[in-house]
Amino acid sequence: MYKIDSLDLSKDQNIQAIIDNKTKPPGALGKLESLAMQLARITGPEKINLNNPTMLVFAGDHGIAKEGVSIAPSEVTQQMVMNFLSGGAAINCFCRTNNMKLEVIDAGILSQIDHPNLIQQALGGGTGNFSKVPAMSLALVDKGIEFGAKVVNRHVGTGCNIFAFGEMGIGNTSSASVLLSALTGLPVETVVGRGTGVSDSVYQLKIELINKALDLHHSQLTDTKGILATLGGYEIVQMVGAMLAAAEKKCVLMIDGFIASVAAMVAWKLEPKVIEYMVFCHQSEEMGHIKLMEQMQVSPLLNLGMRLGEGTGAALAMPLLRAAESFYNDMASFEAAGVTEV
Amino acid sequence: MYKIDSLDLSKDQNIQAIIDNKTKPPGALGKLESLAMQLARITGPEKINLNNPTMLVFAGDHGIAKEGVSIAPSEVTQQMVMNFLSGGAAINCFCRTNNMKLEVIDAGILSQIDHPNLIQQALGGGTGNFSKVPAMSLALVDKGIEFGAKVVNRHVGTGCNIFAFGEMGIGNTSSASVLLSALTGLPVETVVGRGTGVSDSVYQLKIELINKALDLHHSQLTDTKGILATLGGYEIVQMVGAMLAAAEKKCVLMIDGFIASVAAMVAWKLEPKVIEYMVFCHQSEEMGHIKLMEQMQVSPLLNLGMRLGEGTGAALAMPLLRAAESFYNDMASFEAAGVTEV
Repeated sequence: MYKIDSLDLSKDQNIQAIIDNKTKPPGALGKLESLAMQLARITGPEKINLNNPTMLVFAGDHGIAKEGVSIAPSEVTQQMVMNFLSGGAAINCFCRTNNMKLEVIDAGILSQIDHPNLIQQALGGGTGNFSKVPAMSLALVDKGIEFGAKVVNRHVGTGCNIFAFGEMGIGNTSSASVLLSALTGLPVETVVGRGTGVSDSVYQLKIELINKALDLHHSQLTDTKGILATLGGYEIVQMVGAMLAAAEKKCVLMIDGFIASVAAMVAWKLEPKVIEYMVFCHQSEEMGHIKLMEQMQVSPLLNLGMRLGEGTGAALAMPLLRAAESFYNDMASFEAAGVTEV
Repeated sequence: MYKIDSLDLSKDQNIQAIIDNKTKPPGALGKLESLAMQLARITGPEKINLNNPTMLVFAGDHGIAKEGVSIAPSEVTQQMVMNFLSGGAAINCFCRTNNMKLEVIDAGILSQIDHPNLIQQALGGGTGNFSKVPAMSLALVDKGIEFGAKVVNRHVGTGCNIFAFGEMGIGNTSSASVLLSALTGLPVETVVGRGTGVSDSVYQLKIELINKALDLHHSQLTDTKGILATLGGYEIVQMVGAMLAAAEKKCVLMIDGFIASVAAMVAWKLEPKVIEYMVFCHQSEEMGHIKLMEQMQVSPLLNLGMRLGEGTGAALAMPLLRAAESFYNDMASFEAAGVTEV
């Protein structure tokens, strides 16, 4: 169903030789060296090419928000989408300073927004409240995966080979937490966090609702797609589709933040090879994120104590990928620079 | 002697209000928020301005290198300076991708290099071997501080208000380690590391030589300048002068790596207010660096496992400072964006 190829490792020795012949002690560039190895496997091996880096921000509303699990009401999703479209949000600032294209997608927010720059592909006006009913049908999951893929394929068509994934959706840390628990079997208490900053009582409510939902939908939670349909979000489903399509097209996937990382985990459960194309960008302050990273055995590039979402951590990591590209392609070898090899 | 002003904290409430009114939950941008506060104190408060970011790389040779404490011979200092001047080193790549000006200064390497882009202000052809004699005289320390300041003042004259400090000098982790031990009283074993990657026997030799030097010069190590003269390096001394001058001119100081951080500590011991202008950029893998950060009670932005020097960690952190500048100056407030405040 997803035709994702494993990365070609047959050139690893050549790639490592290029890295080791640069004018620096072996390993002295730390994580940038393993990053360069991964990028060279994906886009190399002779040269790393990162073309037209594109940030896709998927927005969707969540039925669970009606239960008061977030610090903000659902209207804020729409307001923030307008803010993205006017260029005023954090993700706009960071995409500007780091020279990334930004595209905002309505994956299913409560009220439709009429704006020429908004990609309209809503799966509905907010998901079902998973504490009572399934978030969406299996048919909508398939449609969402297809919609997410469509966005990616359009950008690949114009030369983009590196994507970052951001999201906006009031209530989506609840959806991401319950997905994580259902996908991994981790106890709810260890994966539920404070979202963007809720109180003790709301935190308790979140845990109760999630436990209730896991009980209620027990029989539907036997496979990844069933879990996604029952507990997911429209923006999460479309991110999953976008990630799978991007890996299929041999693009680099920049993963940041708790919600996008849960989407990455879903994609990985559906097609394990997708992880080979993923660069994990920022360690979220959200509690479940650390657990998720452990499960996927990955370690992010940045740890700035952020908990905003929108893809902000990925946008901030972009210069590190460019730095890896630059040292791999342009740094002198010992021989070329006439430096005694150490 | 250094007329460094404490930062004006009287506008802190206004600055915090600007940060808190941005369209994000309070504190959600983590370390970027405290960074924005510091930058606004230095260059604000209405707007953060980071103008013509300039990387100064100071090179010097070390008498101690004759004892075989490094993986590379002293010639490599000169070879790497040539590499910097031809644009082939890691620091060139990272300054290019992050749009920083790079200037290379001969603070005292073994053999003079004739190159139009090299700033010639050598204090001599390598320091004395501190395991036997003082590295330099007190008069040379004063001259070096003056020379370092001169470079900074020239760039301030053309509109630069943010400096990063890099270095190159075979043997300089030995000098930095012994300086750190002498400045703090920390046991030599806890501050000496592997430099760019020496063997067990060389590591033991480094510890022995440093202990010997601390004994030998005991009577000279009673004040900061005496310590600097006896155990320092020409590039370290000029970095100290450059840092003090930059803080005097109310510039932002980007500090990265073990050697530059030891220079920062020396500057701080000479004039405690200088630390208010410093942004710590990258946690080096060098063991003493963690101890130094603890002593100065600072925490760096990045931890990429690098151990190269040259200012590479500072160059990689530059986009994070630009991100802080951008969100502080350009991100919409709740009111302006029509977003319900959370």
